[in-house]
Amino acid sequence: MNDDKKSRTPKDTHYAKLRRSFRDQKAGGPPAAFRQRPSTPPGEAPAEGLLRLYGLHTVRAAIDNPRRRIRKMLVTRNALERLAIGDIATLPFPVEIVEPKEIDKVTGSDAVHQGVLVEAEPLKPKRLEALGDATLVLVLDQVTDPHNVGAIIRSAVAFGAGALITTARHSPQESGVLAKAASGALEHIDQIEVKNLADALGQLHEAGFQTIGLDSDGLTELEPSFSAERIALVLGAEGKGLRQKTRETVTTLARLDMPGEIRSLNVSNAAAVALYAARRFLSARTQP
Amino acid sequence: MNDDKKSRTPKDTHYAKLRRSFRDQKAGGPPAAFRQRPSTPPGEAPAEGLLRLYGLHTVRAAIDNPRRRIRKMLVTRNALERLAIGDIATLPFPVEIVEPKEIDKVTGSDAVHQGVLVEAEPLKPKRLEALGDATLVLVLDQVTDPHNVGAIIRSAVAFGAGALITTARHSPQESGVLAKAASGALEHIDQIEVKNLADALGQLHEAGFQTIGLDSDGLTELEPSFSAERIALVLGAEGKGLRQKTRETVTTLARLDMPGEIRSLNVSNAAAVALYAARRFLSARTQP
Repeated sequence: MNDDKKSRTPKDTHYAKLRRSFRDQKAGGPPAAFRQRPSTPPGEAPAEGLLRLYGLHTVRAAIDNPRRRIRKMLVTRNALERLAIGDIATLPFPVEIVEPKEIDKVTGSDAVHQGVLVEAEPLKPKRLEALGDATLVLVLDQVTDPHNVGAIIRSAVAFGAGALITTARHSPQESGVLAKAASGALEHIDQIEVKNLADALGQLHEAGFQTIGLDSDGLTELEPSFSAERIALVLGAEGKGLRQKTRETVTTLARLDMPGEIRSLNVSNAAAVALYAARRFLSARTQP
Repeated sequence: MNDDKKSRTPKDTHYAKLRRSFRDQKAGGPPAAFRQRPSTPPGEAPAEGLLRLYGLHTVRAAIDNPRRRIRKMLVTRNALERLAIGDIATLPFPVEIVEPKEIDKVTGSDAVHQGVLVEAEPLKPKRLEALGDATLVLVLDQVTDPHNVGAIIRSAVAFGAGALITTARHSPQESGVLAKAASGALEHIDQIEVKNLADALGQLHEAGFQTIGLDSDGLTELEPSFSAERIALVLGAEGKGLRQKTRETVTTLARLDMPGEIRSLNVSNAAAVALYAARRFLSARTQP
């Protein structure tokens, strides 16, 4: 066994893989990137202008969203039951009952589709004028990673943010990966697209918002920096941070205090902490 | 252009892809899962008992960690400069200067390796007796997703948690994906493995820890629940939550208040918020 590395004949490698596979199964399985099982690659991209949503939470939320236009659904018998749809004839789109592997062929077997997939139209982004009376909004300055943006949308909805504001360029596009990471939250928040972020921050100021850019070099700590009745949290991409123009435009540059040896968080983690803190501040203000 | 869906000849599909690709490039690129470019799959798994670490932050931190045994390094000239290593002859392991595509062949081209890869021994997990005088620790009850656990480790180090406690079974294994998500933090925290989580919680109680399980049905809100000088935050896997035995053993079951239409967070986001809140509580206690 300990000469594996010296004589790497195909047979040795084969048995080494079997041993690893056995050990990994006992240990609960290796992480996806090191799994050596055959996987089905994703199929063709969806037709132009459509996106695919999959996973039970994600699809259930899409069905319940009157603004979401679904074109068709592929679903297993099992998933259909778990979605608690009842009579599929009442759904305003065609439904095809399939085996799980039919969905694998579309999404690839690495996507956790849980037996259900819909093709749908993206939600139409709104304009800043549509903001209404939200007291908490989140602004993303060129954050594009779909896993992070999905998790951010989930946290934004959980902590009651009224909108997600992004620029039209360099922004995440609605996608299956993003929607899955958002776990249904994509259907519960207004997405506002603006052409110019600095102009949009100016409009937020006029509407009474304090705009707070998160920046590890910020002069004030986040919580003591809250002062207004309406708060817009502004986050930049990991590594790059906020653009210079954004830094110059926000009301406040604030930092999260981190006493440890690592001084930055994953962007979705930073967003969750900031949303949590802002929501607590705003709730304390409105309660007697 | 609008008859794409009617007559899907190979040629149509080819041009449709080109158009999409052009549009996506203008828009800053589609999410990885929908990118149609040829990608290099990961190569053979590392030799038994070794793991691969890649990315500038991750490898820099590994080199700086005296406990980390590195066996060899593949690095591009460019990455070598960015790592600021100076004379590679001073490094206690062999270094091979390579082209980026050589690293692609090992990690797969989807891994963001930034031109550097090392093969190293995993860090040896410690026993609970090694905990020392940490005032904040994080306990994971069967959380295994390497992206989430990596991000959790990063937040744990940022907010000064002294250890990450997991069970020996159903736990994340150190891996390249986990290490990359931890962005160097893996080298800065003690990982403690226990056989039985309930027993370990008992030992933490004896050591003066308040153990707080995060649970959406928790009777108290998280922040008002803090009471001790030492806090252990206990998180369960997404979807499954804490196991029954864990719920029965912790001092307190607490929830994060979420006023929005989604009532759960991504587990790494929940961990970040809980760590932030606990750190603030502990800091306020020790400051005059």
